[in-house]
Amino acid sequence: MSTKLVVRMAELEIDPSQLETYRALLSEEIEASVAREEGVLSLSAVSLKDKPNSIRILEVYANSQAYDTHLKAPHFLKYKNETAGMVTSLMLIEVDPVMMCAKS
Amino acid sequence: MSTKLVVRMAELEIDPSQLETYRALLSEEIEASVAREEGVLSLSAVSLKDKPNSIRILEVYANSQAYDTHLKAPHFLKYKNETAGMVTSLMLIEVDPVMMCAKS
Repeated sequence: MSTKLVVRMAELEIDPSQLETYRALLSEEIEASVAREEGVLSLSAVSLKDKPNSIRILEVYANSQAYDTHLKAPHFLKYKNETAGMVTSLMLIEVDPVMMCAKS
Repeated sequence: MSTKLVVRMAELEIDPSQLETYRALLSEEIEASVAREEGVLSLSAVSLKDKPNSIRILEVYANSQAYDTHLKAPHFLKYKNETAGMVTSLMLIEVDPVMMCAKS
């Protein structure tokens, strides 16, 4: 099994008229993923101060298997399905960790 | 004292000929900041897979005082000084947290 971290960034644009609903669904999905999936190490979603419907997410998975498992998780599929009509643009950016530190 | 998280993203371009030195200095600064500064909650630096000299950093501070303190910390000033000739572009992006969860 691969033990290499998988890190990804997502840049999304959300239909402003559905932003509050989108934020609630995203928050629910993030909480559920980190709580229920062993291999989801962190999910950090932020919005641009000067363009609140621009969302950026930094995603950290323990390995590629954890990432594949996440894509099939019921809470992720619910989020993808329920937000499909709210996301007007989605860019996925493959990245490599340089250094990631957090308070324990 | 403000208790509102301060979250920021930085997008940097690094002189490719100095990338390895830059990565070492950045890694040292991140480790020192999280270890020594109470209000630096997390620093996550990544590089784009298809453009490794493009660096992105997600920075989370406990409040605005913690952020101000960080800007004056000796390890941060050392990093800024020693990498000044390596950074060809720096964009700071003010963001608000939507939801940030990590394994404890």
